[in-house]
Amino acid sequence: MNGKVYLVGAGPGAPDLLTLRAARLLESADIVFYDALVHPQTLALAKGAAKIAVGKRCGRHSTAQKFINKRLVDAAAKFEVVVRLKGGDPMLFGRAQEEIDALRVAGIEFEVVPGVTAASAASADLRVSLTQRGRARHVCFVTPRVGKDEPDNDWPDSVNAADTAVLYMGAGLADSIAATLIARGRDAGTPVALVENASLPERRILFGALRDLPRLARETGVGPAVIVLGEVLREAAEFDARMAVSELLRRA
Amino acid sequence: MNGKVYLVGAGPGAPDLLTLRAARLLESADIVFYDALVHPQTLALAKGAAKIAVGKRCGRHSTAQKFINKRLVDAAAKFEVVVRLKGGDPMLFGRAQEEIDALRVAGIEFEVVPGVTAASAASADLRVSLTQRGRARHVCFVTPRVGKDEPDNDWPDSVNAADTAVLYMGAGLADSIAATLIARGRDAGTPVALVENASLPERRILFGALRDLPRLARETGVGPAVIVLGEVLREAAEFDARMAVSELLRRA
Repeated sequence: MNGKVYLVGAGPGAPDLLTLRAARLLESADIVFYDALVHPQTLALAKGAAKIAVGKRCGRHSTAQKFINKRLVDAAAKFEVVVRLKGGDPMLFGRAQEEIDALRVAGIEFEVVPGVTAASAASADLRVSLTQRGRARHVCFVTPRVGKDEPDNDWPDSVNAADTAVLYMGAGLADSIAATLIARGRDAGTPVALVENASLPERRILFGALRDLPRLARETGVGPAVIVLGEVLREAAEFDARMAVSELLRRA
Repeated sequence: MNGKVYLVGAGPGAPDLLTLRAARLLESADIVFYDALVHPQTLALAKGAAKIAVGKRCGRHSTAQKFINKRLVDAAAKFEVVVRLKGGDPMLFGRAQEEIDALRVAGIEFEVVPGVTAASAASADLRVSLTQRGRARHVCFVTPRVGKDEPDNDWPDSVNAADTAVLYMGAGLADSIAATLIARGRDAGTPVALVENASLPERRILFGALRDLPRLARETGVGPAVIVLGEVLREAAEFDARMAVSELLRRA
């Protein structure tokens, strides 16, 4: 048997933000290896498939990744349609390259099916475009998380160079993110938004300034969250602050 | 009539890279305003809708944008489900904010439906992840295009600060992009790829180094293209170069 492996983006969370191609592949899959954040309704499309949970919510080890790589290679010897289902887009913070390299070395046919990334879903929820004419012509997607065996990365300079930045997997590091960006020259008043569970009914959006980021992060729950930062958020953040004041006055 | 306007991402090109939500909305749409790059099969999903082409391929004027804004507002007074269908993701280089602001001022209900952006599709076609563990932890999406009435933007610094960069609407400016980035300190040997018609059967992929970008751009056709730049492309570009040499030797 010479199976084919599909690295498929499951999208940001809501099951109907899956692509038509991904839905079709799931329906014909023999086996699906899925990440923790994939929606049960998305998984349910794979009616005829064995479903294997892999990957952890945070801080997956490279040993775990190597084990996933091996399982994909092994599955391609036994099944025709192997789907590796990843949250968001596989090629953005999805560790797809390690799986691609393993499949390539093993001579296994594969294809990448792109998905909607969390930044796009957060932007839709915020109703604020990440790029804006005359105001934001570049946007940086970044993770401030550095693995144990990884070299340090220069994410703060990249964030500060961009008009808009979206930080993935950063809510747990809010204190150091705010302190680092401000220490490197970013205005502490730069508008930020924290979007938890983007695209899902239980989503939460919190606005503030960069200096408030640690407090915003403490107010959110345990769902996956992205941090958006930049002047594009100015009016939305100010509107949110006015609404909060009105609410306080109403209650007083 | 109080209609609702949906700003919908049509995805990168291939009709089956549309989301399930977008497909459902098109099926129920009364009227669809669509960009030039939307696939005919995607548009065909809107069986019961009037279909209005708006927007130009390149360099849309702000007068044209204001006219689109007005048409959306007017349509919401006449129709229940108004779809504004944009290539890729509406919130990345889609001028969505101008439409959102116009709808808000007019008091019209609206919703943004995110889509797969061109960078994700190009990355899937390249089979190279935009982020890679230990190598690329930030990626910048940018356009080097500046409108006539816009302030200059500092896109080169943002590109150079990022591990990986994806340039939208830049193929026509390849000469100045390469010259500017190199003048600002980027290594002329940095791997680049030009992906034309990402996700479509007629896609073309050209690899090279940053110094070759003008030549690559001249070799591509007239389709929409993104430029990907960064060390993540190193192995893919070298493999492509070895294949080209083999091909030349075979012919000699």
